[in-house]
Amino acid sequence: MTKIRNEGLKNSKVMDIAFHLTELSGPRVTNSPGFMRAANYAKNQLTQWGLVDSKLDAWGDFGKGWELKKSYVAITSPWYRPLIAYPKTWSAGTNGLQSGEVLLISAKDSAELDAYRGKLKGKVLIIDNLINFQQSTQPVGGRYTDEELQKMSEVTEAEDTAAMRRRRERYKDQNIVPREVLTRLKKMAEKEGAIALLSSGTEDHGGTILVLQAGPHKISDPANFLDIAIGLEDYNMIIRILKNNTPVKMDVDVKAKFQTADSRGYNVIAEIPGTDKNLKDQVVMLGAHLDSWPAAVGATDDAAGSCVMMEAIRILKAIGIQPKRTIRIALWSGEEEGLLGSGAYVKKTFGDPVTMKLLPAHDKFSVYFNLDNGTGKIRGIHLQGNEAARKIFEQWFAPFNDLGAKTITIRNTGSTDHISFDVVGLPAFQFIQDPLVSQHSNMDSYDHLMSDDLKQAATIVAAFVYDAAMRDQNFPRKPLPKPLSLDPITGSHR
Amino acid sequence: MTKIRNEGLKNSKVMDIAFHLTELSGPRVTNSPGFMRAANYAKNQLTQWGLVDSKLDAWGDFGKGWELKKSYVAITSPWYRPLIAYPKTWSAGTNGLQSGEVLLISAKDSAELDAYRGKLKGKVLIIDNLINFQQSTQPVGGRYTDEELQKMSEVTEAEDTAAMRRRRERYKDQNIVPREVLTRLKKMAEKEGAIALLSSGTEDHGGTILVLQAGPHKISDPANFLDIAIGLEDYNMIIRILKNNTPVKMDVDVKAKFQTADSRGYNVIAEIPGTDKNLKDQVVMLGAHLDSWPAAVGATDDAAGSCVMMEAIRILKAIGIQPKRTIRIALWSGEEEGLLGSGAYVKKTFGDPVTMKLLPAHDKFSVYFNLDNGTGKIRGIHLQGNEAARKIFEQWFAPFNDLGAKTITIRNTGSTDHISFDVVGLPAFQFIQDPLVSQHSNMDSYDHLMSDDLKQAATIVAAFVYDAAMRDQNFPRKPLPKPLSLDPITGSHR
Repeated sequence: MTKIRNEGLKNSKVMDIAFHLTELSGPRVTNSPGFMRAANYAKNQLTQWGLVDSKLDAWGDFGKGWELKKSYVAITSPWYRPLIAYPKTWSAGTNGLQSGEVLLISAKDSAELDAYRGKLKGKVLIIDNLINFQQSTQPVGGRYTDEELQKMSEVTEAEDTAAMRRRRERYKDQNIVPREVLTRLKKMAEKEGAIALLSSGTEDHGGTILVLQAGPHKISDPANFLDIAIGLEDYNMIIRILKNNTPVKMDVDVKAKFQTADSRGYNVIAEIPGTDKNLKDQVVMLGAHLDSWPAAVGATDDAAGSCVMMEAIRILKAIGIQPKRTIRIALWSGEEEGLLGSGAYVKKTFGDPVTMKLLPAHDKFSVYFNLDNGTGKIRGIHLQGNEAARKIFEQWFAPFNDLGAKTITIRNTGSTDHISFDVVGLPAFQFIQDPLVSQHSNMDSYDHLMSDDLKQAATIVAAFVYDAAMRDQNFPRKPLPKPLSLDPITGSHR
Repeated sequence: MTKIRNEGLKNSKVMDIAFHLTELSGPRVTNSPGFMRAANYAKNQLTQWGLVDSKLDAWGDFGKGWELKKSYVAITSPWYRPLIAYPKTWSAGTNGLQSGEVLLISAKDSAELDAYRGKLKGKVLIIDNLINFQQSTQPVGGRYTDEELQKMSEVTEAEDTAAMRRRRERYKDQNIVPREVLTRLKKMAEKEGAIALLSSGTEDHGGTILVLQAGPHKISDPANFLDIAIGLEDYNMIIRILKNNTPVKMDVDVKAKFQTADSRGYNVIAEIPGTDKNLKDQVVMLGAHLDSWPAAVGATDDAAGSCVMMEAIRILKAIGIQPKRTIRIALWSGEEEGLLGSGAYVKKTFGDPVTMKLLPAHDKFSVYFNLDNGTGKIRGIHLQGNEAARKIFEQWFAPFNDLGAKTITIRNTGSTDHISFDVVGLPAFQFIQDPLVSQHSNMDSYDHLMSDDLKQAATIVAAFVYDAAMRDQNFPRKPLPKPLSLDPITGSHR
């Protein structure tokens, strides 16, 4: 533990790893050139550190890669303003510079949308949906207080499930434009030859913009109509000016490049082989997702987790461990589109959550650790309903309590790759991290990574992985779930 | 007071006024088309409300107006990223799309800069100056607590002066590149045919960028080399990639339009004439600055103050006051360049702070109220060293204590237009406002205006102006200052 601490806190390479994964690679949409640069860097770096069988492991059909090659979006009338604007992933381009008026679409349902039929050609579209904004007097990110952590450690599984349901309801409420209207409008727009659709999120502001996808990405899917994410201030402004009967004109020039030569998705996988003759067939895994959304370099989501996991492995190699069990690192792809890379990997390696048909490696699996809640340091771990793991983690955290890490909560936390393991009954855990800002945004940048937090996290992950690899007993498991009993995205019971 | 409250809080037009000054007008750099649209709207609106002699009042030579007509700034290699980027005010354009490599300039002084001579042609320049960034766990804006307000009310003038000096020192420390290096680099860049210089502030982030000026703006000044403000995340990223010996290439296409037909600066001035035969020659003034920096619509700086002052006037006209003294509203220009519009107005109307030669109207002046600290509601007022005003303001605030406004501090507050009056010995006051975000930024947008705060402020200003106009005695004054005894920007003793 002392060696791990020294290597992790005093000789850290975590920010150098992060730099390669982010600013030298670019955005890492699955199957894009940026993703492949980062994946190849990781594969080669892991090999250099002495891991074996480091590879890009094809997990199945993902679809098209997508890369932005040009984006210029500006208001030209009533006065000039270049917009902070990002085409959503898998949007088609404009075929050069297009100029047109903005058309305000006021339609609560498909019937109302019909009023706009035949009027969309050459127009930029915006849906009449002013977003309520209040200047915040709250910090955008922070650190857990002792009280908050205490509460977390005392929550029951029933309370946690109820809270999760409430969060999901709230999330549903945020769908301000009915999906059916949006889909139909995009079809009309495509058919009639509109230029683009402008969209905004409801929460971020000040130039930070969340950018997700314009539509599906399979090779067989048609092109997606150009859907551009802009800031809520600009979105509201355009609507207000139009409602004042003042025309708004825009210039839009977007070029996107689709990668269709290889539609397979790849995870990066590498191993430190186990050395104990009875335990070396057993596997301890650690992972994070390497893919990101495209509007920045996905620094906190989730280069942070990826560089911490790589650094944890580097620490263990640097101090020359001889683990009893095999240690395997996985940097997933397709996470943002629904845990696709980890899900496919688990299915082909350990078992199918739909049929609950399990493979032999399921028996040999020890435990999986995941990190995907931003750049904040580790404060504890979610038991994911596995009460038997509490005592073990208490012991493993003991040497790091002074670094702020000790809280253990029964909570099920969802939305990331440990769920792919959990749904086939394998022990898989996501750490509790300080809630610093982590976003699918245009400003998820290297500078938003907090180096001290990442060093702490890598040190603790290295120790947990070592502890798991050296443990005499097997890691305790929950009862096997029923087929499909968990929602793979939220991790909650359906 | 009840009528003012009802009109101001229940029948407010302040957000409608704000909309006209901001989103319908555009950025309001002095002498730009956006400024003139806002100024003409204000002039006409004040006339419509029944004010007399509403006019654009030429105050002297300002210089060129400036307006952005195109801005496209993107990294094209090692991977594509459109930058959040704004040419600084009075920058020249590029004459179409220019592409070039970014050159890292590492020079602490002019001698070191010589190493780059002859190497700048076709390059985008960036100064090697990584900005330290930490994710904040503090709110970006907030409201004063009772304790903070209490402290403010107890501060002595000596303590206040010392604090002001400390703030000024800190501000000096932030000049990260010596001005001499910057000036010389820009000259070399211009001469050798570089494309642009990239700059970043040290504090804002997440897509919010402060944008000031590239250089001087007099008609006789030469064009300023293109100086582009970008986000600190992008600024740091470019430097890090270059330091990794990876070339960074950029596309830059900037078009700026200079207005040179009329170099005179204009304030908007209008009056409600006094009705008391003994007092009608005396003047109560209220004002704020109408001009802004160009990267957004200057909503909180200072459309907020301008719309509050206009709304205060509207309230007074709506309830049909017959003021004893004349009430005069002024919406200044050239504030951002150094209180130019208010300074020139005071000089031609009341007296010259350099010579302290005073004009007859100096005697007839009552008091001036200013609002220029963002969108936050009024919490009190700065006495500006005028202790005799304390009792008066206590009385005037009494009907509005329930709206959170009552704190009176001896403090001198500077950096805005009341200083132009203060330096010739005229009573002039800036209110204390809740410190919500107010910025010279690309995101100083209409949505960042908080309507409830502006309504409260307009109501209180209307009441103060009414109180001052109706008061039997003259408003107490400080002793006349010595010529030039105050720094016109900071308001502190030199």
